[in-house]
Amino acid sequence: MMATIPEPPRMQAPPEYIEAALDAMESAERPLVIIGKGMAWSRAEDEVRAFIERTQLPFLASPMGKGVMDDNHSLSVGAARSHALKEADVIFLMGARLNWIMHYGLPPRFNKDVRIVQLDLSPEAIGNNRPTEVALVGDGKTIVGQLNSALEQRQWFFPAGSDWMAAIEEKAAANAAAVQPMIDDNSAPTNYYRALKDISAWATEDAVIIGEGANTMDIGRTQLPNAAPRLRLDAGTYGTMGIGMGFAIAAAVVHPDRPIISVSGDSAIGFSGMEIETACRHNLPIKIVVLNNGGIGKGIAEFPTDAPLPPGVLTIGARYDKMMEAFGGKGFFVEDPKDLAAVLEAAKAHPGPALVNVVLHPEAGRKPQQFGWLTT
Amino acid sequence: MMATIPEPPRMQAPPEYIEAALDAMESAERPLVIIGKGMAWSRAEDEVRAFIERTQLPFLASPMGKGVMDDNHSLSVGAARSHALKEADVIFLMGARLNWIMHYGLPPRFNKDVRIVQLDLSPEAIGNNRPTEVALVGDGKTIVGQLNSALEQRQWFFPAGSDWMAAIEEKAAANAAAVQPMIDDNSAPTNYYRALKDISAWATEDAVIIGEGANTMDIGRTQLPNAAPRLRLDAGTYGTMGIGMGFAIAAAVVHPDRPIISVSGDSAIGFSGMEIETACRHNLPIKIVVLNNGGIGKGIAEFPTDAPLPPGVLTIGARYDKMMEAFGGKGFFVEDPKDLAAVLEAAKAHPGPALVNVVLHPEAGRKPQQFGWLTT
Amino acid sequence: MMATIPEPPRMQAPPEYIEAALDAMESAERPLVIIGKGMAWSRAEDEVRAFIERTQLPFLASPMGKGVMDDNHSLSVGAARSHALKEADVIFLMGARLNWIMHYGLPPRFNKDVRIVQLDLSPEAIGNNRPTEVALVGDGKTIVGQLNSALEQRQWFFPAGSDWMAAIEEKAAANAAAVQPMIDDNSAPTNYYRALKDISAWATEDAVIIGEGANTMDIGRTQLPNAAPRLRLDAGTYGTMGIGMGFAIAAAVVHPDRPIISVSGDSAIGFSGMEIETACRHNLPIKIVVLNNGGIGKGIAEFPTDAPLPPGVLTIGARYDKMMEAFGGKGFFVEDPKDLAAVLEAAKAHPGPALVNVVLHPEAGRKPQQFGWLTT
Amino acid sequence: MMATIPEPPRMQAPPEYIEAALDAMESAERPLVIIGKGMAWSRAEDEVRAFIERTQLPFLASPMGKGVMDDNHSLSVGAARSHALKEADVIFLMGARLNWIMHYGLPPRFNKDVRIVQLDLSPEAIGNNRPTEVALVGDGKTIVGQLNSALEQRQWFFPAGSDWMAAIEEKAAANAAAVQPMIDDNSAPTNYYRALKDISAWATEDAVIIGEGANTMDIGRTQLPNAAPRLRLDAGTYGTMGIGMGFAIAAAVVHPDRPIISVSGDSAIGFSGMEIETACRHNLPIKIVVLNNGGIGKGIAEFPTDAPLPPGVLTIGARYDKMMEAFGGKGFFVEDPKDLAAVLEAAKAHPGPALVNVVLHPEAGRKPQQFGWLTT
Repeated sequence: MMATIPEPPRMQAPPEYIEAALDAMESAERPLVIIGKGMAWSRAEDEVRAFIERTQLPFLASPMGKGVMDDNHSLSVGAARSHALKEADVIFLMGARLNWIMHYGLPPRFNKDVRIVQLDLSPEAIGNNRPTEVALVGDGKTIVGQLNSALEQRQWFFPAGSDWMAAIEEKAAANAAAVQPMIDDNSAPTNYYRALKDISAWATEDAVIIGEGANTMDIGRTQLPNAAPRLRLDAGTYGTMGIGMGFAIAAAVVHPDRPIISVSGDSAIGFSGMEIETACRHNLPIKIVVLNNGGIGKGIAEFPTDAPLPPGVLTIGARYDKMMEAFGGKGFFVEDPKDLAAVLEAAKAHPGPALVNVVLHPEAGRKPQQFGWLTT
Repeated sequence: MMATIPEPPRMQAPPEYIEAALDAMESAERPLVIIGKGMAWSRAEDEVRAFIERTQLPFLASPMGKGVMDDNHSLSVGAARSHALKEADVIFLMGARLNWIMHYGLPPRFNKDVRIVQLDLSPEAIGNNRPTEVALVGDGKTIVGQLNSALEQRQWFFPAGSDWMAAIEEKAAANAAAVQPMIDDNSAPTNYYRALKDISAWATEDAVIIGEGANTMDIGRTQLPNAAPRLRLDAGTYGTMGIGMGFAIAAAVVHPDRPIISVSGDSAIGFSGMEIETACRHNLPIKIVVLNNGGIGKGIAEFPTDAPLPPGVLTIGARYDKMMEAFGGKGFFVEDPKDLAAVLEAAKAHPGPALVNVVLHPEAGRKPQQFGWLTT
Repeated sequence: MMATIPEPPRMQAPPEYIEAALDAMESAERPLVIIGKGMAWSRAEDEVRAFIERTQLPFLASPMGKGVMDDNHSLSVGAARSHALKEADVIFLMGARLNWIMHYGLPPRFNKDVRIVQLDLSPEAIGNNRPTEVALVGDGKTIVGQLNSALEQRQWFFPAGSDWMAAIEEKAAANAAAVQPMIDDNSAPTNYYRALKDISAWATEDAVIIGEGANTMDIGRTQLPNAAPRLRLDAGTYGTMGIGMGFAIAAAVVHPDRPIISVSGDSAIGFSGMEIETACRHNLPIKIVVLNNGGIGKGIAEFPTDAPLPPGVLTIGARYDKMMEAFGGKGFFVEDPKDLAAVLEAAKAHPGPALVNVVLHPEAGRKPQQFGWLTT
Repeated sequence: MMATIPEPPRMQAPPEYIEAALDAMESAERPLVIIGKGMAWSRAEDEVRAFIERTQLPFLASPMGKGVMDDNHSLSVGAARSHALKEADVIFLMGARLNWIMHYGLPPRFNKDVRIVQLDLSPEAIGNNRPTEVALVGDGKTIVGQLNSALEQRQWFFPAGSDWMAAIEEKAAANAAAVQPMIDDNSAPTNYYRALKDISAWATEDAVIIGEGANTMDIGRTQLPNAAPRLRLDAGTYGTMGIGMGFAIAAAVVHPDRPIISVSGDSAIGFSGMEIETACRHNLPIKIVVLNNGGIGKGIAEFPTDAPLPPGVLTIGARYDKMMEAFGGKGFFVEDPKDLAAVLEAAKAHPGPALVNVVLHPEAGRKPQQFGWLTT
């Protein structure tokens, strides 16, 4: 029999640290829990759900922490992310880190006086970028279990009807209203929000969703929810472009029973799109959706017509769907958003690899933002 | 004005070393000059031609040294490469190195007692893998010029009608006879030699030829000659796969006035074939020929039909030509070798990027060889 | 005020792991606790003492774990180290690691079937060199505290009068008897055991003791006990020679109120002995004892007299004491062991740096050993 | 027989480069040749002497290039180093490099418009820090030989009686006059110049001289001449302190027939002075002279008397001579410069290792300088 790696030993936090963490959350006026992929990898979803529902604390998922809690849970602040990060007075980093995705925990994206409770597997991660008030080092599942046990001795939960929750809900509603016209816009070529509406409706809860690109990955983080853990993969902590096809192929091999959906921008698929051939050779039923605006950065209209396009601008009208067909998979080309839902179903019905190439308006972008990136 | 890198200083060899090198060549019974890319980069083609024609020494080009001397020159031993390397008693490494491409200079591919004269830019390269009898360190153009000047004082040249040249010619003729049936074979699907015959006839002397792949690169080294220097690029000293598209794009940008021809195996194009999109975006008139046998290594017939193909076997019938069309270039698909010449002309006539996908028989390979690789 | 590094967060083990560890120890017939420097650095001495005295488990200190438990405690197996390591059936690595000092936990120095309970700060250290049956990852002080709390619910302790303890005591007595003649030997020049007897009597319990050298460090580990933690420094995990003077100077600066005693072999002082000048310049009251046998390895009598000594053999009669005087400290030269006790007192009485150079017999060595190193 | 490293191949410069170099020197009004250790290691002393005497060009030796030309040669500008570097209009770097020792070739230490002719073994060294007008890459001995041959066809030499030489001689005389009072000063404790006068008189021309320290090495570079090549070792290109004892021991082993003299500052001997024991063990007849001013940098009088001395200040009155005696060598202590000459002779007469510890005045330093370091 093959030798296997033993299960890693679990560590937990001393009881007084558990109490200190709860005290800190209890002292907050504007608390926030950030759920990171550490909670997914430690398989702590049951404990996290129990904790959130017991404490009634609002939460935000990191990109790969999505699904530990259902993105559509009423306590999710995903629809008011920027506001919640900026205004929170005590943040519980639950297997999440203050890296670039979390703006290093610094103003203007965070409150300059924010207090930090931090749960992490690694002592070396404690206090990075911001001082930690209470540090819980060890296994996520075990430590959130400790928190839940300790809560049995406490009367406290974060009260409903707070100004904090009201402000978050108000901001979320405003954000939703701002993008709703784009979601509802049926004109062709389409935009990110309209396309992601159909993709979201089409992706079942058991699917592994892979996101790659700049706008595609960013907007997808808010418009394409997960309801279960460990089903979202993207460029992650190091922001590595080109991982989409590798993730999709690996997911298809490891989870032959799950739908595998890769949603990619057109610049992103250019990194390792050649692996479409690999997917076809092994007949892996990956469904790739390319949101294709034919360019990077500013709109095509802003470039002069009498000079070569700069190197980073992509081909207008690149037919990634034909590339899929070149290797034996099924390709679809969608120019009108009204066709998208039906085409996605056809791709799902195809037993092998399929690629849906969705033409976006070259000017398609995000709703206007206060900050330059990773917003909402 | 932009600062530029000054021309590097030229170094030459002391006169007594020049004489010693000529003495060594004069003492040889079975001499051989190996012309490496060092001669190409030092732009020594005029001096090398004068040296070879004055001394009448037989020569072999390294893969990227091809064209410093015309591959079709009567003194080229390219058609009897293995024999010449194995039997030579004195070898002049002229900007070439005893690396893996040259079998490290070791038996059984080289004579165990072979003596080495070595011209190299770098003192650190002298004596690598085999002791050097005479070392000429410095600029190739300058030093071969020194050799030519010194030859003015000598009566010697390597005599015509030697046993050595007769044996080489005999071996070359036998090799040619062995592959001639493959060259002449018009059955479909075709083989490497038949396909390369038409490619060779089609490639003009001013073209930059890029070779990538295993059999494709190896067989192409003998069947696809160069007549001028610095017009052949391939995996080179480090055997790096995946360089073909990068070389082709760079060559097209640097030499807008030259045909750019990339001849690639199907496994090779899988490394960075996605850059076809780049070539299309910039409308670079690269002509890519894929010699497509749908697999790596042993023939497809040798794999069981009731199990998945191993990971390294490629897709039978992958349509790289359609991939080119997906991005706006022109694709051609050739199943019968009788169509190949006309298709290549059509590709040449197309003003932008084009790809000719040539179906090879899955069992297509090399003529039977005494050694496993880099032969003839 | 200067920013300081916050106290590192403490981690502890889940309760079921604590129970499993105690179960494993309870199941042992020949248990052994190895106390490493992890217990010293986590300041766990109170908890470790309570654990050992409550469980009555025999223990062995690692070189820098000496003093967490008093070396002279009745449960110490230091005097029968090799026997205890070889025969134990369950070993509790308490902040100790199976590195070279612990013979990598492998036969013939360890029982091939030994079971391992391991307490370590670092998950990456678990299972190194031997599989771990129960892993307690986290802070030593906290986890031994957890063990002690759990013991309150157990009746068990390791019973007195076991065969295991009897065998250890028998072996320790035999070892003691074997070295007693060397300890009692008053002839001049002296031997390691005789010299260390006086040094041990002279070193007060509050002293920082630094050991460096081969025989000097090894024999000193058994003959020069510590009674309190964090007062022993030596070449440690990486066996680095040359650290003695740096340790001594740092200890004198950090602990101006403690005696600082460095016991060094003559080869060892050769690495960084020049720092004696530093100690004198700053008038640091370090007491250096050099056990000087004028050589490395085999005895001087084994070298031929008609050839130069090999490079590694040191100067017979090197006067390190005069070197101390050259820089303004006080030097003592001891040729007869009967003078040693008085000289050590004189060195102690000197208010500044002092060096006692003790001449050993060139043939002085260890008692005969079953294994080549790190024995007793 | 043991395999040996073959002699490295020699490279030379093309004839037109040789002519260009001579043209450049001929065009100079204020020429200077800097002779570096590249000339020593290529064993070019005969060729360099012929070149200098044929061209009558003034020269400066780099620290380890000393002795390729006799430091006392009439064309040496060593006594007016700063002036010559600053005013030269064309400099021939002959195996020397524009590193920190040569002030990177930059103003204010060099003329901002200085033109550079550079002879170096390594193409990568050409043009470092300053553009090179003529680059001669290759073997020093061979290339200076080429220059000398080419000079046979030229009438030119740098004429006697130039303003340039007159200015250098005037500056050298002024420098000599400035230090003469220090050289003549017989008061005790002594100064660097007075001590080096006797050391210079005592050191025979065949001695290997090693210099280490700050003032000791710097002042020694001007006051302690070499007459033959490869007999001067010091901290060199990388300014590494602590190399003195290693150099001395190696020199004594390699050149058992030569006097080995190491002149060291007291801070310098503190790095690896412990190797005095090694020298004694092997009875290597090294003669060490320590110029001992008991401190680094500013004079002892400038430190407050009511506080500990800073770490970098050494022990006043450290008796390195006694340290030598501690290991069996011969030590001498010199407090009055009038005793120095006789003591040096006694050290020379001693057949084994000896150390002469010369007390300098704590305020001893250099003559006032225009620049902060590496001056004259």
